[in-house]
Amino acid sequence: MDYAPSPRTTPTRNPARVSYDRTTAHAVLDEAVVCHVGFVVDGRPVVLPQLHARVDDTLYLHGSTGARALLAARDDGLDVCVTVTLVDGLVLARSAFHHSVNYRSVVVHGTAHVVTDPAEKSAALDALVDAVVPGRAAGTRAPDRRELAATTVLRLPLTEVSVKVRSGPPSDDAADLDGPHWAGVLPLTTVPGAPVPAPDLAPGIGVPDHVTGWGRSGS
Amino acid sequence: MDYAPSPRTTPTRNPARVSYDRTTAHAVLDEAVVCHVGFVVDGRPVVLPQLHARVDDTLYLHGSTGARALLAARDDGLDVCVTVTLVDGLVLARSAFHHSVNYRSVVVHGTAHVVTDPAEKSAALDALVDAVVPGRAAGTRAPDRRELAATTVLRLPLTEVSVKVRSGPPSDDAADLDGPHWAGVLPLTTVPGAPVPAPDLAPGIGVPDHVTGWGRSGS
Repeated sequence: MDYAPSPRTTPTRNPARVSYDRTTAHAVLDEAVVCHVGFVVDGRPVVLPQLHARVDDTLYLHGSTGARALLAARDDGLDVCVTVTLVDGLVLARSAFHHSVNYRSVVVHGTAHVVTDPAEKSAALDALVDAVVPGRAAGTRAPDRRELAATTVLRLPLTEVSVKVRSGPPSDDAADLDGPHWAGVLPLTTVPGAPVPAPDLAPGIGVPDHVTGWGRSGS
Repeated sequence: MDYAPSPRTTPTRNPARVSYDRTTAHAVLDEAVVCHVGFVVDGRPVVLPQLHARVDDTLYLHGSTGARALLAARDDGLDVCVTVTLVDGLVLARSAFHHSVNYRSVVVHGTAHVVTDPAEKSAALDALVDAVVPGRAAGTRAPDRRELAATTVLRLPLTEVSVKVRSGPPSDDAADLDGPHWAGVLPLTTVPGAPVPAPDLAPGIGVPDHVTGWGRSGS
């Protein structure tokens, strides 16, 4: 089922590129390693990169968004806009004007709250580790009570959500098609390199499958 | 010369990771294909992905940030926070708690104004095309008067700027070093694929060097 449009998720430009498709939104949120969290401090915008994890229709944010914002979130919650963007390619038109980028982005508006329930917090932290490397949470030493207390996790319901996608070739004006300029798309992909073991890794511990398999299905 | 710290570019967490180094800030801004622009609408945050180009100590933003924001910028300017983040690797510690990401990010605070001078606007649009693919602006049909009028460019001075960098291996607690878990870094890189010519590309137009050479020196 699609997300319901709201005034602030209704586009003023390129409406054909916008949808409210839940499956696409989830896929983009899941593939992105970082999100950008916007909030308002003293009437002015602040945007910080952050790790996130989606569990069903909830987005969890790792709470290192600065002490002031977190304090605000402890009371009435924190109004946030969370945006993720995956760049799929550079769109090179004959005309400078029609240059673009192929991308998939998701914008989430809502009010984030600090997760206080210990079970939810523990599950959210597992999800945050697994969002970076699927399967990783089971391959680590789980957080102890002190570490859980030292970590803040924010919960943001996925209700006001929009997706924007641009794909395909450049859209040049007909008059430019006979011009001398090359046009097309340069695809971009994020690829993992060879894993770099920690300098203090004990001998005999091999690279686990969840590391070597990263990126083969989702992020 | 470094940028001068301000209250809102002074970190509340991990101060050792933050700097005001101009050269690093410029390199991160130049390498990133998209930025995330935050602004305030009706007291609430909005964050949208955007193309940007740096010219010396000015950041130009391609003005498709929505009509309301642009209208606001036409008068007193628009308070924005522009953030770019490059993800260099996934930091996999023995403990879930010490998981992290290697990244380079830049946060710019300031007031953006619409560029009205035609010469500055034309140069900024060239810079925006060259920011996506260096050398590309000279390999395209330049904007005509109608296209220039249809495009909005915002100018943001680079004065309130901070850089945050995390690099290197995971930082596990001493007590975890003898544990059974693999630890290390999975490097991530953005790589170009083979250029995809536009379906309507005239025969005999080869892929230019500025396309095949993308990413070999900066973005």
